Order: sequence, then structure tokens, then C-alpha cells
Amino acid sequence: MADPLRIGIAGLGTVGAAVVKVLTTKAAELTRQCGRPIEITAVSARDRARDRGLDLSAVQWFDNPVALAREAEIDVFVELIGGAEGAAREAVISALSAGSHVVTANKALLAAHGLELAEIAERQGVLLNYEAAVAGGIPVIKTLRESLAGNAPTRVFGILNGTCNYILTRMEAEGLSFDECLADAQRLGFAEADPTFDIEGNDTAHKLAILTSLAFGTRISAEDIYLEGISNITQADIRAAADLGYRIKLLGVAQRTTTGIEQRVHPTMVPTASVIAQVHGVTNAVSVETDILGELLLSGPGAGGNATASAVIGDIADIAKSRPGFQHGPVFGRPVNELTPYQQAEIQSHAGGYFIRLTVHDRIGVFAAVAKRMAENDISLESIVQRAVDGNGTDEKTIILVTHETTEFAVRKAVDGVTADGHLTAKPQVIRIERAA
Amino acid sequence: MADPLRIGIAGLGTVGAAVVKVLTTKAAELTRQCGRPIEITAVSARDRARDRGLDLSAVQWFDNPVALAREAEIDVFVELIGGAEGAAREAVISALSAGSHVVTANKALLAAHGLELAEIAERQGVLLNYEAAVAGGIPVIKTLRESLAGNAPTRVFGILNGTCNYILTRMEAEGLSFDECLADAQRLGFAEADPTFDIEGNDTAHKLAILTSLAFGTRISAEDIYLEGISNITQADIRAAADLGYRIKLLGVAQRTTTGIEQRVHPTMVPTASVIAQVHGVTNAVSVETDILGELLLSGPGAGGNATASAVIGDIADIAKSRPGFQHGPVFGRPVNELTPYQQAEIQSHAGGYFIRLTVHDRIGVFAAVAKRMAENDISLESIVQRAVDGNGTDEKTIILVTHETTEFAVRKAVDGVTADGHLTAKPQVIRIERAA
Repeated sequence: MADPLRIGIAGLGTVGAAVVKVLTTKAAELTRQCGRPIEITAVSARDRARDRGLDLSAVQWFDNPVALAREAEIDVFVELIGGAEGAAREAVISALSAGSHVVTANKALLAAHGLELAEIAERQGVLLNYEAAVAGGIPVIKTLRESLAGNAPTRVFGILNGTCNYILTRMEAEGLSFDECLADAQRLGFAEADPTFDIEGNDTAHKLAILTSLAFGTRISAEDIYLEGISNITQADIRAAADLGYRIKLLGVAQRTTTGIEQRVHPTMVPTASVIAQVHGVTNAVSVETDILGELLLSGPGAGGNATASAVIGDIADIAKSRPGFQHGPVFGRPVNELTPYQQAEIQSHAGGYFIRLTVHDRIGVFAAVAKRMAENDISLESIVQRAVDGNGTDEKTIILVTHETTEFAVRKAVDGVTADGHLTAKPQVIRIERAA
Repeated sequence: MADPLRIGIAGLGTVGAAVVKVLTTKAAELTRQCGRPIEITAVSARDRARDRGLDLSAVQWFDNPVALAREAEIDVFVELIGGAEGAAREAVISALSAGSHVVTANKALLAAHGLELAEIAERQGVLLNYEAAVAGGIPVIKTLRESLAGNAPTRVFGILNGTCNYILTRMEAEGLSFDECLADAQRLGFAEADPTFDIEGNDTAHKLAILTSLAFGTRISAEDIYLEGISNITQADIRAAADLGYRIKLLGVAQRTTTGIEQRVHPTMVPTASVIAQVHGVTNAVSVETDILGELLLSGPGAGGNATASAVIGDIADIAKSRPGFQHGPVFGRPVNELTPYQQAEIQSHAGGYFIRLTVHDRIGVFAAVAKRMAENDISLESIVQRAVDGNGTDEKTIILVTHETTEFAVRKAVDGVTADGHLTAKPQVIRIERAA
């Protein structure tokens, strides 16, 4: 039996406590699988006095995670502090620099500083594993980094934020408003007190930035992501989508195009009969399309203590199975100096189908004016629905258009034209349609 | 740059040719990802003269795969011959014994002799990778063996045979008979000339046997699998399933119960709204339920040259990234001598819901007699439908029952009772219902 793998864990919140619990209760089985024991030798958290239901009496305690990373006798530093800057970053840099492997669940840190950290890991010959940082317990990092070797992905997309998917699922299933569902999500602990980061798509964007780098071999570029949240999605959109055979999901999409790589996060219509449309509630899913394999879809729990702990422990076990002197492939799939610069494809050149919902005065000539604006921008229409606005005694109508493939540029120009014509009584709604099997 | 990884490939059929093509066309990218070149140095196939569209002029040719395994200067032996016995088995044993790593797509070999091979691999300190053996390009082996370390699965189930799923998908979508769909599948190359092995569930059983061992840490036991194929599924079943909110899929299911582990392959009703019900055509899918993570589902191409090649190359790349002296965890997740004996749970004790379709004489008292048989076996019914047999001028009726959770024993006893009562005009149809999210 080889020497134990010594672990230091920084951060004992929901995930950290779950990791400690699983490593303790599954110690014998993990030893069997890894060929050596995994021992927690040091921990760090803000409040030493708090009762976490864990017996940490035999473990060295550090008030400061950076001190743990620098001083503790560990083989692996597990970072579960969170945040792109401050203690998390400093501690991870310290751990890597001290020659420790690092396991982290911190997507914000990787989206902002992943390449810097990968460079240190490469130089030091240690592993930087981060399965838990994207889509929780779904093994998408390992799949992209290891299983799909030799494949060239053409598109990666997914439901990467459980809060948004929970809200959209309940809006559709129960006919509730966005605000009602958000309040429920907050009450149930699926959304933060300040939900902006989730519902405006920033969390999805961090995860997408990591997937993009792995899939396309490009340098991480989290700032170059087109972002639209779900707070303006209404029951009118959800019902119209259902009528047309679509369901609305917040997707992160990275796609190779002729001008570069699109990275976009926005509410998206996916066919109701597609696999990803059946991914409900807080569940996450990621789809990868490649030249060799075709389309692969993974779905599962995307957040929560246990699901995240599962991914963290998978990462730790991989290190335990490795032996000194071994490096299991580069952090982002290729050595940092071989990652190519990220070449952004502008959202204006995005090609795809669009759902357009217009609320207009119920007057003669309005429909003709809308049709004219579409035609003059070469937008061909797949379906057109005109109906009275529900439960509304006024002189308003709703016009719903679904376009064949066109461009963002054409759609924006057409919708600006309709707006300028003065027929709209409310802000126009535009939702992109995404192919999905 | 480390030394090249030298590969010998035995078997140059569809998969073998695809592996050679990808290794050749993606050589630069694979070198980038693995940190060393992957070089094909030897191949073996039955017919040297056949034009495969490959340039193999620089490669050593062996007519005999066993000779390749024994004599060629290789680091990795890639077995793509197929079959549980004969050349494939002998060559893999020779390769492992000679200290070569082995990559294989051969589920029959592993189902029959996996433990023997794993023991040799362990003794020799070499890797035996077999991602392509189960569900083609879906990374389910890596997920169970690596990502889910520390998780205890409670159930693994999946659509593991593309031929069956293609047939069932077309039967449902187009209202065609089993025979018509099978003939089409043969014409399109999705089914063999002798399709027995696929449609009677044997192929699914081989794959399930491997998944069971990985998931539950048990010794492979491919003979102890309950087997039912899809050849007796009719349009009447498919239409009744659809009416009741179900879709019929051939599933392989391994499940921990109080009496042991069930391994069963049979047509199964899954809820139409479940993710796995949207897995159409030749696509495969595997779902794993565990104590820590919850439910994970993977779906993707389960067969075909490229999808299988993708998995084979992922396995080769893992070896290329490793360094001499390193072993990446045991072949079946635990060392062979720590795998526990497989404790079979008998199909009679299977607990679950059942769909029962009875064709009966249209006589007074028949329905009461059927109801009595259910009641005396403590079978509680979720739904009951009685209707005339479609397009049938005779005095027949169909009775369709969906049970709440009961046991196989109770259902068989009840159906035997109904049969003994003499009301049936055709063989009764019984299809198990499987929970699926």
C-alpha cells in the first residue's frame, strides 16, 4: 500500500462539509479504489467555533487558508472558498507554488485567472483539477479534457445554472410569473438573496468561459461573452413557445463559426421534443458536438453540497491514483502556451432562427408593415401567429414570428424598423432558437 | 518531448480503419494534448490486399494478431477483432503478458473473461482500457471508474443497443411492425443479417455485465442476467404505452435490492416525459443513480466506426498522458481480489410497476374474473382500460392494466390465473415499468 494522500481543505461551507463527510464515511472504499488512503490533515475556515457536525479534532486547523496552503504538510490543497480574488486566488497560487496539487470548485477564479494558475501548475508539474467548477457533479471537464481527445468540438451548449432552470421550469409548469418563481427559489435556497449573478447569466458565463477553452483550445476569455438574463421572460413568451413546439431555457453556447467562436448566454428556445428540453428544475445539462463522435449529452445535479462534493472527490481520487512524477495531461487540455488566442465572433453575425413577439395596435396595415420590415431584411418566416392579447380589453394584438435561419444583424434591423414605424405598444421580445436533438 | 507511444492495431474493419484515420489526421493535435506523438507501428488484419483507403506502407504488417501482440515493438495493443474467444482473447492475453497496455472495444471478451484479463493487467502493472466496449462513444466507463469515486450506485440502466432502439423508435413514429422495421434496419446497416444477438438482448447483456461490475464492485457475472428481447413487441403495446404516457425502450438495468443485485434486460415502459424517453434511433444512453451525486444521465452515439474510434482514441490518449510506472486505478474500479462475489437477486422478487395487456373474449364476467385474479395476488391497479380490439370484427376485447408497485411473482401468478380461467384469446403481454426522471 502506498503512502496516504494528505489533503488540506480550505472552506467548510456546505460543499466543504460534504467533502469531509464523504471522505470520512467512504474511507475504506476510496482506499480500495485508489490503492492508498486519503487523509484530511489540515482544514481552514473563517469560524472555528461553528458546529458543522464534523469531528475535526485530529486535523490541523488554520484560520488563514493561505497559511494552510503554504505551511501544512499536504499533497493536495482543496479550495472551496470561492471568489475570483482575495484568499482563494492567493491560497491556490501558494499551494501550486509549494508543489501541492490543487482541486477547486471555483469557476469565478478559473474564468478570471485560469491560465495564470495553469502555468504555475505546469511549471511545478502538479495537477489542477476543477470538475466541480462547471455543472457540479456532471463529469464534463473530464469528458472534454480526456474522453474527447482527438475530437474537434464544433459547439458546446448547456443549462449551467440551476437557479434559472428552476425558475423557467416552474414558470412553464405552473403558469407563475418570473417574480413569483424567483421568490420561491430564494425561499427554498435555490437562489441567493441577491440573485443578479445567477439570473443575469454571469454564473453561466463563468462556466461557459471554461468550457470554451477546453473545447476549442483557446485562451479563456470570460469578458467576451454576450450576456442576456431571464428576468424579462414572461408567461406570454413561455405560452407562445409551447404553442410553437419550443421550451425556453437559459443556455450558455460556445460555437465555432466562420468568423471565430461565439460565446453567448441568453434565454433560448429549444424544441420541446429534444433531450435538453426535458432537463427540469435545478438539474444541469451539457451537450458537446464534435467532428468525430457527433453529439454527446450529459445531464445531472449541477449544484448542492453532495453533487459538488462528488466531483471534488472524483478529482482527489484521480490524484490519489496517480504517482509522484506523473502529470495527467495539461490543465486546459493543451499546454498554456499552445492555447490559441480567442477570436471572438460578434453576436451581430450570429446565424440562427429567431422568435419575435410584438405587441401592436390593432389597426389595419400593422401586419403588412411588420411583414414588409421582415422582407426588406431578407428574413424568411417559418410561422406567423396573430392573436388578441390575453385578458386585455384594449385595442392590442400580439404578432408572433418564427424566422428561418437569418442573422442577428437582420433581426435587429427589422425590429428597429418596426419600432420606428410606431405600431408597437410594448417593448419587442426577441429570443434566439437553438438547434437541439 | 517524451518518446512516441507505439501502437499496434489488430482488426481493420470499420472501427479499426476509423482509428487509423483519426490517429493520422489528428496527429498534431493529439501530440499537443498528450505531450508525445502517438505512432502506429504495427497492424494486423485478415486480408492484407483489401483497399481500406489507408496508407499503411510504413507500418509493420502481421497476418496473425497474436504474433503482433507477442512480437511487435509496441507500448499499446489495440484489440478490434471482436469475439469472446479465439484470436481476440489469445492476443489480448499475449499483449498484457508481454507488458503492453491494452485498449479494446470487445464487450463479449470482457463479459466472459474480464476478470482474468484484469488480473494479468494488475500483475503486469499495465492498463486495460475499454471505454468503447459499452455505449460506444459515451464515456460511461470513465465516469463510473473515475468520476464517481466514492459514490455507491444504487441503479444503473440504459439504452445500450442501437439496433433495438432504432426499431422501437420507428415502430412508434411510423406505426410500422417489428418485422418491417427490422428489415429496414438490416437494409441500412443498423442490424446484422442474423439480428438475434441484438434483438434478443444478448448484446445489451454483455454491456450490462461490465457496468454492473464497475458500479457495484462485484465480480462480472454475465450468465446471471434475466433476458427478454423486443421481437414480441407489437403496435398494440406501443399505442397503449403512448396512451398511458409511456414509451417502450429495451433497457439493461442493474439495481441493488435487499436480496442482491438485479441484472435484467427487457422491453421497458419509461415515462414519455423522461429524458431517456427522448433518446431516439441508434443513440444510446446510460443513467447512473448514486447515494452522493444523485442521478446522472449520458447520451450519445452508441455504435459506428467514428463513435467507437472516438472512445478508443480517448483510451489511447489516457495511456499516452501517463508515464512509465504509473497505473491509473484498477481495471474494474477495485483490484480483482477485492471485487465481491455477485449476489443475484432473482427476477421473481423484482418489485415495480407492470403493464399487462390481455386479449379476451367479449363476454360478461371476464373483466370481473381478471380483476379477481389481480386482487387475490394483492396487485393494486393504477389504471384500467378496456376496449374493442382495433380493426377486428370478432368478439374480442383488450384489457390493459397498469399496476402500482408489486412483484414479478405476484404478476406471473395473477396472469397464470387469468390464463387458466380460459378467457384469453391470445398470449398475455407483460411489460415492466421503470422509474426514470
